[in-house]
Amino acid sequence: MTDAPKDASRPEARAPRGFLDRRARDLVAERRILAAVTAVYERYGFEALDTGALEYADALGKFLPDADRPNEGVFALQDDDEQWVALRYDLTAPLARFCAQNWETLPKPFRRYATGTVWRNEKPGPGRFREFTQCDADTVGSARPEADAEIIAMAAEGFAAAGLPAGAYQLKINSRKLLNGLMATAGVTDDGQKLAVLRAVDKLDRLGPDGVRLLLGAGRLDESGAFTKGAGLGTAAAESVLAFTAAGGGGRAETLQRLAAVVGGSAEGVEGLKDLDAINVALTALGVGDDLAAIDPAVVRGLEYYTGAVFEAQLHFDAEDEAGQPIRLGSIGGGGRYDDLVARFTGERVPATGFSFGVSRLALALRAVAGAQGVQARGPVVVIAFDQSHMGEYFAAAGELRAAGVAAEVYLGSSGMRPQMKYADRRMAPAAVILGGDEIAAGTVTIKDLDLGRALSAGVSDNAAWREQRPGQVTVPRGELVDQIRRILEARP
Amino acid sequence: MTDAPKDASRPEARAPRGFLDRRARDLVAERRILAAVTAVYERYGFEALDTGALEYADALGKFLPDADRPNEGVFALQDDDEQWVALRYDLTAPLARFCAQNWETLPKPFRRYATGTVWRNEKPGPGRFREFTQCDADTVGSARPEADAEIIAMAAEGFAAAGLPAGAYQLKINSRKLLNGLMATAGVTDDGQKLAVLRAVDKLDRLGPDGVRLLLGAGRLDESGAFTKGAGLGTAAAESVLAFTAAGGGGRAETLQRLAAVVGGSAEGVEGLKDLDAINVALTALGVGDDLAAIDPAVVRGLEYYTGAVFEAQLHFDAEDEAGQPIRLGSIGGGGRYDDLVARFTGERVPATGFSFGVSRLALALRAVAGAQGVQARGPVVVIAFDQSHMGEYFAAAGELRAAGVAAEVYLGSSGMRPQMKYADRRMAPAAVILGGDEIAAGTVTIKDLDLGRALSAGVSDNAAWREQRPGQVTVPRGELVDQIRRILEARP
Repeated sequence: MTDAPKDASRPEARAPRGFLDRRARDLVAERRILAAVTAVYERYGFEALDTGALEYADALGKFLPDADRPNEGVFALQDDDEQWVALRYDLTAPLARFCAQNWETLPKPFRRYATGTVWRNEKPGPGRFREFTQCDADTVGSARPEADAEIIAMAAEGFAAAGLPAGAYQLKINSRKLLNGLMATAGVTDDGQKLAVLRAVDKLDRLGPDGVRLLLGAGRLDESGAFTKGAGLGTAAAESVLAFTAAGGGGRAETLQRLAAVVGGSAEGVEGLKDLDAINVALTALGVGDDLAAIDPAVVRGLEYYTGAVFEAQLHFDAEDEAGQPIRLGSIGGGGRYDDLVARFTGERVPATGFSFGVSRLALALRAVAGAQGVQARGPVVVIAFDQSHMGEYFAAAGELRAAGVAAEVYLGSSGMRPQMKYADRRMAPAAVILGGDEIAAGTVTIKDLDLGRALSAGVSDNAAWREQRPGQVTVPRGELVDQIRRILEARP
Repeated sequence: MTDAPKDASRPEARAPRGFLDRRARDLVAERRILAAVTAVYERYGFEALDTGALEYADALGKFLPDADRPNEGVFALQDDDEQWVALRYDLTAPLARFCAQNWETLPKPFRRYATGTVWRNEKPGPGRFREFTQCDADTVGSARPEADAEIIAMAAEGFAAAGLPAGAYQLKINSRKLLNGLMATAGVTDDGQKLAVLRAVDKLDRLGPDGVRLLLGAGRLDESGAFTKGAGLGTAAAESVLAFTAAGGGGRAETLQRLAAVVGGSAEGVEGLKDLDAINVALTALGVGDDLAAIDPAVVRGLEYYTGAVFEAQLHFDAEDEAGQPIRLGSIGGGGRYDDLVARFTGERVPATGFSFGVSRLALALRAVAGAQGVQARGPVVVIAFDQSHMGEYFAAAGELRAAGVAAEVYLGSSGMRPQMKYADRRMAPAAVILGGDEIAAGTVTIKDLDLGRALSAGVSDNAAWREQRPGQVTVPRGELVDQIRRILEARP
């Protein structure tokens, strides 16, 4: 920090790979999402919880006890007492640790939400970062299907609050118990084989039924020549799994009837159907219609730890990346019921269910909905500084605007008029305030409408008609400064 | 994550030392501060910047190139390319790295604010954590004293916006150039000796002039018998430093006159006086009076990297800790001008100035101002669940309340009426909603005022008179649910 700069020892200014610097224009969408979703969580009675960024590696559950260092996937380091600590890779593992530690004193069920940064020590790539934001809500200590329904309703409301229009997304619901029941009926009891079936079904979206059929059976050779070993199901079992995944479509009640025919045979399947039925009833009571939440047996979710209902929020349209290429967003959030996470610590099963918003994907989706204008960060009004002896007037003008709730600043660099205008434009200032010697002497102020300039150069409006009503620059009595600026802010194209 | 729970391998549920789990009641004060201060920053035209939690250790500036591991004070680990990365210990070092990396493309001056977590790998203790929140604003690329004045004005407004009453705090301003000039006059040129003088003056608050006199001279033996080596100034030089630090008091203009007499002799001292004079003029133009910001030569700030003006926000009252013991809060934020941080990377000096709010100390201060009631997190209205067959009615009631903007939840545990009431009370619910079979049949709803119960048991109000106007429980037509709950929320004691 304190070394005098020396050429030889000068560090290079760069951020670690996969870590992103984000300026206002990149942050505004994410902040709006978090504020909107958090408000919904609070209306549903979920309370905020912040846990630390570092957890003991064994508590996070990715520590291999016989290895010298924690395994891949987390950023880990040794604390001064030689214990390994690691940056959290999600917000669920710290919640499980917190609940196990404080279970006696918590109100039960414990409803909590959390927003925070998580870290993954993975290979970064385009659009793939090692640090990102999560926004979760979980109910710990309720086995009721209504707790799942509430989470689903809250997620649906959260997406709407964040700005997704109705019809643009849908929550898809399934239960792991159905697939488990189906496998029990087919005689599949090995955990490894069950997991391979789950992973195969999880690829339905990408590979289609034919690809999944191969993965359920002997295996699949992809275009690159790589072979993925399959789950090893016989033909009849594989076909029953595929028939199950295809039983979705239509309203929830209709899908439930169809599913009863496919998985009705096993005890676990019947239990899963009963759960989904109760979720359906509660969703209806909560005002969540079939358009917002459907039952879809093709949704399984990749994570092993789900034990019952699983949910996934899917977008019905594609977004575009910065180069205008379509990006398939697909899932913009998901969750489910996990009843074993607290048991890792205490040995006692605690029922839990939760949902995690895909914050950055949702931000991309909202940009696609609103267009670039909708999520732009607006800069402050810039008061041009001509003359050191008039700084008092400049500060007074900026102060008046701020007092009226308008962001404003006095230019404090050392450049002349033209670069100051350029600066104001780069800052996305709606207007520049000019208080030259003439204006001050005459008790006036000149206001340059920079929004207009940008709109004209972007070809947003019908130039001629618009320019007539809205001059690029006006000189008004000094007392009308705030009103004049307000007019520009309200007329924003 | 996925291990089946086994007794032998079960991890202990605990957080690393010095890391705090914070629930809603602990978070509400900090969140309000960040929201209020952030709004002020934006009104002043500062734009948000988020940088990553991890930085290359050499970029943070705490890396010893000849050591195998980074030195104490940071949490560091080796990335997979063998480079050392570390969790940021403040928000200023990442800003310097960001500016050095992006200087060409940034609007200049670059005004940015940042709120975020920082980490210090230090010995934790009571009230001393290894993870905490900072909230900074900096202007990079302006050498003007007005940039300092703006930062000071913004800090003063930020404290007010966060809820500190006028008169409770004051910004103290000084310039390092004054003390440097004084030392030049006294013939002190050695950097180590200058630093020792700074550190001695920084203890004025705690040790008083007599203690500092010892530290300016040969050294000081404290009560525990530990000896601190002094700066080694001669008697005349030490007395001139002490006279300088005592030249504060009264209005800014008055202090500046007194200081001119003490440090007027050296070129650097004259420059410092000129800076402070310009800051004073700009503060006056910004409407910041002597009551909010004073010039105080006793303020030096501990950090070596300041090169000009330094600021410190001081509280005029003490707070209490959770046990009711007085805590001297003293400084609740500070900052100053640092012109060398970007030069560490580029070799070119870039003038910069900034301020950092002491978020957790400010939260303590606000608790002292407002009393415990003022910063309490309020829970949701709890709808009591009696009967599975009426869940639809419970969800509808909660839904109505949420649609009216009132946080509400249906109890989703498996306990009876009495534990549900206890649960509602522990959640700080303002009211419980009772929809028993009788109420549903009669088209009514019973509402229990839990705020009242808590107020009565805390002895907050005149029980008899108050109880008369405000019954503990009422049964009203079902259509009046929202109005009745609103009445309780508005009457909150």
